[in-house]
Amino acid sequence: MQRTNIFLTKLLDYVEVIRLRIMTVFEERIEALKRNGRKAGIDAFLIVSEKNMRYLAGFSTLAIERFAGIVVPVETGVPIVIVPELEKTKAKEKSAFKEITTYSDSESPALLLNKAVKELKLEKAAFGVEGTLPFRFYRMLAAASSKIRAEDASALFSQLRCVKSDQELGLIEQAAGVVAEGIKAGIEFIKPGVTELAISCRIEQVIKESGGESIPFCLVLSGENSALPHGETSNRMVGEKDVVLMDVGAVCEGYYGDLTRTVFVGEVTKKEREIYDLVAEAHEAAVRSVKPGVKAEEVDAAARNVIENAGYSDYFTHRTGHGLGLEVHEEPYIAQGNEMILKPGMAFTIEPGIYFFGKFGVRIEDNIAVSQTNRRMLSHISKELVVV
Amino acid sequence: MQRTNIFLTKLLDYVEVIRLRIMTVFEERIEALKRNGRKAGIDAFLIVSEKNMRYLAGFSTLAIERFAGIVVPVETGVPIVIVPELEKTKAKEKSAFKEITTYSDSESPALLLNKAVKELKLEKAAFGVEGTLPFRFYRMLAAASSKIRAEDASALFSQLRCVKSDQELGLIEQAAGVVAEGIKAGIEFIKPGVTELAISCRIEQVIKESGGESIPFCLVLSGENSALPHGETSNRMVGEKDVVLMDVGAVCEGYYGDLTRTVFVGEVTKKEREIYDLVAEAHEAAVRSVKPGVKAEEVDAAARNVIENAGYSDYFTHRTGHGLGLEVHEEPYIAQGNEMILKPGMAFTIEPGIYFFGKFGVRIEDNIAVSQTNRRMLSHISKELVVV
Repeated sequence: MQRTNIFLTKLLDYVEVIRLRIMTVFEERIEALKRNGRKAGIDAFLIVSEKNMRYLAGFSTLAIERFAGIVVPVETGVPIVIVPELEKTKAKEKSAFKEITTYSDSESPALLLNKAVKELKLEKAAFGVEGTLPFRFYRMLAAASSKIRAEDASALFSQLRCVKSDQELGLIEQAAGVVAEGIKAGIEFIKPGVTELAISCRIEQVIKESGGESIPFCLVLSGENSALPHGETSNRMVGEKDVVLMDVGAVCEGYYGDLTRTVFVGEVTKKEREIYDLVAEAHEAAVRSVKPGVKAEEVDAAARNVIENAGYSDYFTHRTGHGLGLEVHEEPYIAQGNEMILKPGMAFTIEPGIYFFGKFGVRIEDNIAVSQTNRRMLSHISKELVVV
Repeated sequence: MQRTNIFLTKLLDYVEVIRLRIMTVFEERIEALKRNGRKAGIDAFLIVSEKNMRYLAGFSTLAIERFAGIVVPVETGVPIVIVPELEKTKAKEKSAFKEITTYSDSESPALLLNKAVKELKLEKAAFGVEGTLPFRFYRMLAAASSKIRAEDASALFSQLRCVKSDQELGLIEQAAGVVAEGIKAGIEFIKPGVTELAISCRIEQVIKESGGESIPFCLVLSGENSALPHGETSNRMVGEKDVVLMDVGAVCEGYYGDLTRTVFVGEVTKKEREIYDLVAEAHEAAVRSVKPGVKAEEVDAAARNVIENAGYSDYFTHRTGHGLGLEVHEEPYIAQGNEMILKPGMAFTIEPGIYFFGKFGVRIEDNIAVSQTNRRMLSHISKELVVV
């Protein structure tokens, strides 16, 4: 009994240490946001999107039917959290900021927003808001004071979010890990006669069993469908000598992993092998080009040049990759014309592909982060050519 | 050859008749929206949400990264559609309105919106917008003219959309049909030792094979998990004498079906049968109460009274139902306090439930529409007690 108590006390201490460490992360993020705001002439932020609330305050509610948000003053006072009554417990437990006000179904959140604006003396403030801020919530803010100016501060949020902490990179790696488990199970499941849908169900099941909290997409494209970068999983049965392309995204604690593998059924033709090797070479070239100080478009060019030199540039019809994080598509976009300079902590996909419409397509996609010196792979799954 | 030509000509005529009939639907909807606008003092509408675009113009784009929208003048001119260049073909083919302007990645949609406002002489207009209109699109509208006033017209859209045409009811019925196929397959698949996830995968597979275009949720809750109305499908294995609750939503051509069934494994106890029969009775009472002129809250009361009279009101912890259509939750909400009067064409769920925390729960959910005289069931699946 005594030993159990000591153990429990230690465990509680440990939980508290972890909690404080997590708290600090959010406080640091808010401080960085304030610095960005100061430079941009912003006096306060109103944050309502699920992803930004999660990122900045450690919790989120789905503010679709009801208002939930955080008012962050840049110079004065502490952030004020406004949530519906029924989210109170969750907010008290999980929010990094403890100034929490709630409203019941018969009250209006507009009054609380109004009160927060007055309390923080923000009646004449330049408010940085999200580009996605719903009009009805914007109106509540504008109604709090006619002298408030609202500005789209999306870039300030994305500037923060696109550089990931080690903990965030760990979550992307974890998500990429469960996707890899799913794809491996999918490969084992593939044989002539099974449908794309059945393979996709198998992949989803293994991902869920491996701890993926959701699977926003699980594309399985076989035969000529593999040549459609935006194709949809169908009832098509895998044939004797098909190509099968699997592009799968899963989420762990809010963070995305996103991988693609392409395999061959029964045999691989000379042409298919040539194309597979070329895509793998382009992929490898892009990976090797990743390091701090390089522009996003240079990573795209590294992959594109390999495919262009082989004479297949017309068949690589999309960008080389996109940033990964709380969203599956975010900065940095690895695309022609994106001059964003890569910094340590940025995470993204590398996914060159070659598609012959009506015949077959090959894509190989991994997840990678920029490290202090060069790069860190976040996905760990072979890209050797596989014939099943 | 001759006969084929005649056949083809007839077929093309038939396609044209259908096309015109579909066009008319959208034109009628726009006319109804204009009537609503006129009554509310609105001069024009800006529509950007996927669901409202689909409903009012027959096509939609995902206007998340790029702007896509329709400007609808109430008195003057015809609707103007603005889409990104890459959606041009889709818009030309599918939009009910043929005044289509496009912008390339290097151009700004703000200029096109500005031009549309000028062309339609809406510089001083009261614009009805959606409550969800993203701030950055609202700013584009406000920048077109400083004299434009924007008002949240969400209620005007929902007023239109909550009364369904026969064609829409047919789609909800079709969606409920594929959900029913999935649930039946799930019931056949249930046995002690299979996991909730495996059952859920089986249901999803059959729904996709039956033509469901997406499955936004597929909850399988077994044993004590069945008592959690907001529980999540897990790796839990079904036990020898478990209750298994399945709550599944699927989409056909944009419209939702949403059904729940609860079954018993191995045997059913006296208490479980009592509760099941009571929920079925409450469900039946709510169904029988549906007819034009009745208030939404009266349908809720019909179910609630049955459960209250049996002494279980504390265990029925949610509303009796919600509207169904292009969204899974919309008006009419079948809830206490909703005095909305039911009209022919309204469609919604009836889903009473009783939950004993830590033990088991039972919910039975069907889809129903108000008809000219009383009601029309949109789901057709037995609610007899099932022991597998």
